[in-house]
Amino acid sequence: MPMERTFSLESFDLKTYLAERRRCVDEALERFFPASSGLEKTVVEAARYSLFAGGKRLRPILCLAAADVAGGSREAVMPAACALEMVHTYSLIHDDLPAMDNDDFRRGRPTNHRVYGEAVAILAGDLLLTEAFGLLASPHGQADRTVPAERRLQAVAILARASGAQGMIGGQVIDLESETRDVDLATVEYMHIRKTGALICASLEMGAVLSGADPQTTEALGRYGRHLGLAFQITDDLLDVEGDPEVMGKSIGSDAAKNKKTYPALLGVARTKETARDHVEWAVATLERFDRKADPLRAIARYLLVRKA
Amino acid sequence: MPMERTFSLESFDLKTYLAERRRCVDEALERFFPASSGLEKTVVEAARYSLFAGGKRLRPILCLAAADVAGGSREAVMPAACALEMVHTYSLIHDDLPAMDNDDFRRGRPTNHRVYGEAVAILAGDLLLTEAFGLLASPHGQADRTVPAERRLQAVAILARASGAQGMIGGQVIDLESETRDVDLATVEYMHIRKTGALICASLEMGAVLSGADPQTTEALGRYGRHLGLAFQITDDLLDVEGDPEVMGKSIGSDAAKNKKTYPALLGVARTKETARDHVEWAVATLERFDRKADPLRAIARYLLVRKA
Repeated sequence: MPMERTFSLESFDLKTYLAERRRCVDEALERFFPASSGLEKTVVEAARYSLFAGGKRLRPILCLAAADVAGGSREAVMPAACALEMVHTYSLIHDDLPAMDNDDFRRGRPTNHRVYGEAVAILAGDLLLTEAFGLLASPHGQADRTVPAERRLQAVAILARASGAQGMIGGQVIDLESETRDVDLATVEYMHIRKTGALICASLEMGAVLSGADPQTTEALGRYGRHLGLAFQITDDLLDVEGDPEVMGKSIGSDAAKNKKTYPALLGVARTKETARDHVEWAVATLERFDRKADPLRAIARYLLVRKA
Repeated sequence: MPMERTFSLESFDLKTYLAERRRCVDEALERFFPASSGLEKTVVEAARYSLFAGGKRLRPILCLAAADVAGGSREAVMPAACALEMVHTYSLIHDDLPAMDNDDFRRGRPTNHRVYGEAVAILAGDLLLTEAFGLLASPHGQADRTVPAERRLQAVAILARASGAQGMIGGQVIDLESETRDVDLATVEYMHIRKTGALICASLEMGAVLSGADPQTTEALGRYGRHLGLAFQITDDLLDVEGDPEVMGKSIGSDAAKNKKTYPALLGVARTKETARDHVEWAVATLERFDRKADPLRAIARYLLVRKA
């Protein structure tokens, strides 16, 4: 049975939902991270080059969707949603650098350092990371003032933890080291949980916390995020083996060429697909206690099994 | 009249004061940024290599001194003091990278990328920046819980602003661009206010805000910080011309070799010394409204005129 048929999308129209949410996030990013005409304009322009490079806005959309489940308002969580995309973008810019993955293209366009040079690319990443925390902490108009400081501080702590040694940066350093040594599946999973999973998990948790969710709701959404993050990374690995370079905007087989330890390399394609299905099922199962408001999260999880890019 | 005689240190023993404060900051940094035994240990070790490289801890000491003026407790501001040193250290690691200033030595030791390689050095900088915000936002034992969330959030906002496009990163990109074009004194001053001044100013403001200072006190301490920051940068430029390489742990003349636009290059040594004295006097003048509790800040400002490293 081909993986594509295992789940059918529900009556809920995911495509329209994602397009509408993505548009809102793009508008908010434009507002929160505008172009600059000052002497520092080069680094702002470089950061915006990568921030507006056609990303799917998965993390902001998950953050907003978690707020919907927890009964929060879109306005109240939008700064956090945008901060997540800024941190995600910084990590892509730094990962692409010559000293790291040395990638020339991302999403069909030259990578940041290919356009702006290494020095400005490093600073553009630094800037996005810095301003992400600034965005969470500064006042942003009326709506945001309704969120108590305690919750916003908790969001800062969640974002820092997901991005630090126990999260994304820890995952990236394990990834770098795994290129030159043999690693087992447990290490690869541990690496992915940190490198990709932690920020996805934080997206859900920040949406919940900023909406004043009770601890059980936050915990359930976080668990959904952990499984979704793994399913996302596993299907990403599969696309690098089986994807269509035209649709993806990058060449396939690049993981294998770099001796990256991927799921397909360690498990074979068939068992990798099974593992992806398992995590999607587990993700959906953690949403059992929630009503139709969680349908977008259910649909997003199932969509991973049919994604083309 | 040689610059060294213009001010004499007061009865207050600055040397003992700085040594004691530095020891406290070092202890707190060890507690807040401990070594790791996990898979991410390399990047933590690299970050600690630069964090414990014998820094003067100027920014943490200024933060603690501002808290003393504002009537705050040392315990309450220590996480912020350490966060400032972590952000300062991240900026040094990234500035030293081959793509930036390409420096091989700092404080008499090989720079981070010379020991750990470029990839890990970039990540170590990213880590220090990330964990600095985490430190401000996370609970750190009993003392810290006494600081209201609103004040801590304000400290996050101050740190982000001082480190971002309007602060350190903006200053660094202006610095990079000034190497290949002619710039005037106004631009050099603007660059320094951002690159060095902003974080020094933030050190004072964060200490004040976390101690619940009134806006006038915070503003006065911030103004002191702006003048101190400029005086610090100007005397730094002077040391690069006139300093003793043995005492400084780095070679002199490196600014000129890199075509850096410095104060001595633009103003000459004599007028540069005058400018440094002016800023020190202005810094001390902003402290007029404060009693003896501000003596350490007065002494630190005057000390810049006799510094050897």
